[in-house]
Amino acid sequence: AWADGNAKSGAQKIKTLQCQSCHGKDGLSKLPGAPNLAGQAQDYLIAALGAYRSEDRKNEIMNTVAKPLTDADIADLTAYYASLQITVKPPAP
Amino acid sequence: AWADGNAKSGAQKIKTLQCQSCHGKDGLSKLPGAPNLAGQAQDYLIAALGAYRSEDRKNEIMNTVAKPLTDADIADLTAYYASLQITVKPPAP
Repeated sequence: AWADGNAKSGAQKIKTLQCQSCHGKDGLSKLPGAPNLAGQAQDYLIAALGAYRSEDRKNEIMNTVAKPLTDADIADLTAYYASLQITVKPPAP
Repeated sequence: AWADGNAKSGAQKIKTLQCQSCHGKDGLSKLPGAPNLAGQAQDYLIAALGAYRSEDRKNEIMNTVAKPLTDADIADLTAYYASLQITVKPPAP
């Protein structure tokens, strides 16, 4: 089942999996087409990684990256990125 | 083709389409499972909306919402959310 995961071990796994080359250690996109992940809703990230792992959602890089991930990996990785605090400048009225 | 879109008319279209009920006027998720959109990479958002419109990417709500959108709509809507400025608190070292 999806545990809430551990952001600290998530940070380790991100180094191993090299997520930061596209998504950044700070969770801001480093590659055109790669989304920002910082502060993203964890359940959304869990659903996205699960869909890439099962190939419900198609993306060459992400299907390859997600294939070997365990539920615990997904919980930890998403916990890390969801834990990054973002603030949004209020939109113009 | 994908123009860069106009954030101002995007804000209008968001009111009409009620995007803010799930994604918020400030682009922060208001519904479990709905992602934050604030400051997201515009090309990623354009690709996502295009995939929901063509149903390459499956999601009941988003396939319905995206169906009638024109390329110009997609450019404007994504321009609005991409224009919201986010700052990320640097992750713990």
